[in-house]
Amino acid sequence: MRMYDIIEKKRDGFELSIEEIEYFITEYCNDRIPDYQASALLMAIFLRGMNERETADLTNVMAHSGDMIDLSDIPGIKVDKHSTGGVGDKTTLVLAPIVAACGVPVAKMSGRGLGHTGGTIDKLEAIPGFNTSISREDFIKNVKEIGISIAGQTGNLAPADKKLYALRDVTATVNNISLIASSIMSKKLASGADRIILDVKTGSGAFMKNLEDSVKLAKEMVKIGENTGRRTAAIVTDMDIPLGFAVGNSLEIIEAIETLQNRGPKDLMEVSFELAARMLELCELGTFDKCMNMVLKAVESGKAISKFAEMVERQGGNTDIINDYSLFPQAEYKYDYVSQKAGYIEAMKTDTIGVASLELGAGRETKESSIDYAAGILFKKKTGDRVEKGEVIATLYTNKEEKIQSACSLLDRAICFSEEKPQLKPLILAYIDNKSST
Amino acid sequence: MRMYDIIEKKRDGFELSIEEIEYFITEYCNDRIPDYQASALLMAIFLRGMNERETADLTNVMAHSGDMIDLSDIPGIKVDKHSTGGVGDKTTLVLAPIVAACGVPVAKMSGRGLGHTGGTIDKLEAIPGFNTSISREDFIKNVKEIGISIAGQTGNLAPADKKLYALRDVTATVNNISLIASSIMSKKLASGADRIILDVKTGSGAFMKNLEDSVKLAKEMVKIGENTGRRTAAIVTDMDIPLGFAVGNSLEIIEAIETLQNRGPKDLMEVSFELAARMLELCELGTFDKCMNMVLKAVESGKAISKFAEMVERQGGNTDIINDYSLFPQAEYKYDYVSQKAGYIEAMKTDTIGVASLELGAGRETKESSIDYAAGILFKKKTGDRVEKGEVIATLYTNKEEKIQSACSLLDRAICFSEEKPQLKPLILAYIDNKSST
Repeated sequence: MRMYDIIEKKRDGFELSIEEIEYFITEYCNDRIPDYQASALLMAIFLRGMNERETADLTNVMAHSGDMIDLSDIPGIKVDKHSTGGVGDKTTLVLAPIVAACGVPVAKMSGRGLGHTGGTIDKLEAIPGFNTSISREDFIKNVKEIGISIAGQTGNLAPADKKLYALRDVTATVNNISLIASSIMSKKLASGADRIILDVKTGSGAFMKNLEDSVKLAKEMVKIGENTGRRTAAIVTDMDIPLGFAVGNSLEIIEAIETLQNRGPKDLMEVSFELAARMLELCELGTFDKCMNMVLKAVESGKAISKFAEMVERQGGNTDIINDYSLFPQAEYKYDYVSQKAGYIEAMKTDTIGVASLELGAGRETKESSIDYAAGILFKKKTGDRVEKGEVIATLYTNKEEKIQSACSLLDRAICFSEEKPQLKPLILAYIDNKSST
Repeated sequence: MRMYDIIEKKRDGFELSIEEIEYFITEYCNDRIPDYQASALLMAIFLRGMNERETADLTNVMAHSGDMIDLSDIPGIKVDKHSTGGVGDKTTLVLAPIVAACGVPVAKMSGRGLGHTGGTIDKLEAIPGFNTSISREDFIKNVKEIGISIAGQTGNLAPADKKLYALRDVTATVNNISLIASSIMSKKLASGADRIILDVKTGSGAFMKNLEDSVKLAKEMVKIGENTGRRTAAIVTDMDIPLGFAVGNSLEIIEAIETLQNRGPKDLMEVSFELAARMLELCELGTFDKCMNMVLKAVESGKAISKFAEMVERQGGNTDIINDYSLFPQAEYKYDYVSQKAGYIEAMKTDTIGVASLELGAGRETKESSIDYAAGILFKKKTGDRVEKGEVIATLYTNKEEKIQSACSLLDRAICFSEEKPQLKPLILAYIDNKSST
């Protein structure tokens, strides 16, 4: 087999065989195919496309390029959740304890944040003492004993995807639905869960800027799941507005704790509960309505917050933070960002808001940067709200006074006003499972 | 300017500006753009195409990436000829002395052969003593004094094309009409002639396998010529049959000498005289019919063969070879390849014939190989001819007895028979100039 012939075949619009896909990935990962041939093939794939079978094969081959995590020691159906990345997205922190409280084991490996979106692992580390670097054995032991563990990725998951993604990133071949879908799903397959729920974000802060493409991406990933034997479902949610009011690590943990006690922001509750119910449905606990009832009961009864406390305790964290938020790291500077004009907030550029939070210290610009857990932004007003001149829109938290100015400039650009009250979009825009027509 | 944005722009089907093309070529040649970005752009160009303006700009920028040869010391309109490469193609050896004999200066820089096609320079070196490595000064002096010189390429012509072609060759991005056209024409522009005549080959032994694509390529190159201020015309000729009967260096020189004396093979005379007349027409010596008359007179009067002799003498070659072919290097082995069956020759795969000749020693497999000037194949029968069982189809010439067997096997594969006399195609299939409609 020759890489040249594989490039030529895809260039001319033909379907690649599983052997050809395997050859490409294996040889490329072993540095026996040069980057310049791989990037020519990626561009041909970008422009000619891949069909359902090719996409599933690519995903599977990339998943098997590294460790395949074995969760079979844990009894029952294991379910995983993935979000394509959003600003202020703390749904995992809410839904994981709820789902575990309903009896479905949650073995969740999460990533760290880079750039304008945060990572679940970073958020959990805002809890004093919380250890996300537990061993594979302790991770599985926790899930078996208390039904939940959230830890940082260990091992070498889908290294082929990592290598390929780095090349796509510099050759303008990222934004192709088949390639995005296989990249995400290869890591999910390697993570070992039986069922997968996806939260595909759409809008200014997301990979996919419009609903049509987001639905396509969701469908593509659900199909890959079906074709590789992992039942998968997806919801498409709006990312033209931050989820909840809090952006930044300890601020988001506090908001998640509130939500687990049924007093969180309406939008965050809506998305988190929907995802949790869909996870239960995917694990065959009943109809969606029945599952939603179970979710609401877990929250209202206090079982969800208890499960969260159990997890924090198991992983070495201080559980007193649940009732005393002053135990979180505190920011030296609190600055009220006030409105320069009166009107309605018409739109919020979530990616720019993410960058503002990063500036204040809540994120990392490079892999080596350290995080200020106290830093972030707490909104008082969001899209659709009426704001008077001089009214506080958000409070900025930081330990770097000199960064307040530039964060405010970013917010000036991120928040758009209108004279009239804007029509609000629904938050959950679509649901896709294996029964959805294509 | 960023290479990433240029790739993205072409990927999405937009037109690249001259500044973007210049940036790409300049930075790539200076090793400031990596191969993997260049190959992604090449694949995007391959699949999205380039318009007339982009193609002309790319050609011009590549032409200016190295030396631009200045022929302005030579009075009159200088005309250059290029063939896209064929097996047994010795037209340059015939038409150059004819055109020079008609008073149009011929300053021809030629290449060496690689793979299954031969090069004019290699063929001339079959003449004992002939020096193709003359200085730029001697080259121009010869053209000024006797009207003709054929020498090997000196200087650094279109290095950008060289670098880009090497990358296209391994990334399946060669066979795109805009890219082929700009590659050929960049070298022609750098070579300094005012007018360019092109012989675009079509068929099994050529870049372009069908007439439609060959005509497209010819039109594209004529357009580039017009857009860069060099009047250009092209003929499209059949390459499903070797030109003449001889393949191999001294065998082809002998055939050219015969043709210059009006007793060459019919097909070789037809193509060479047509090209010569088109060159004179391009230099404004009159209508095509008038120019063809001049060509025929130059041959019939003996002026053409005299001009050839003059050139050989000037460049140190032994002119006695014109009347005594025994002075050429002689092959130790002559082997008659006879037909295994009776029938008509229906088709000849010229590329396979080229490889057979290479096997016998007439070509070089790598840049470092040396050439056996005596080696080659002399056909007795060609497409359309009736052959009886046991009749000689061709004589093989070689100094490597052990290669005869494999050359014969290649000929077995190259020559196809039929029961009925095949319909012969015309040899000259199209003529394209700036007046041809697109």
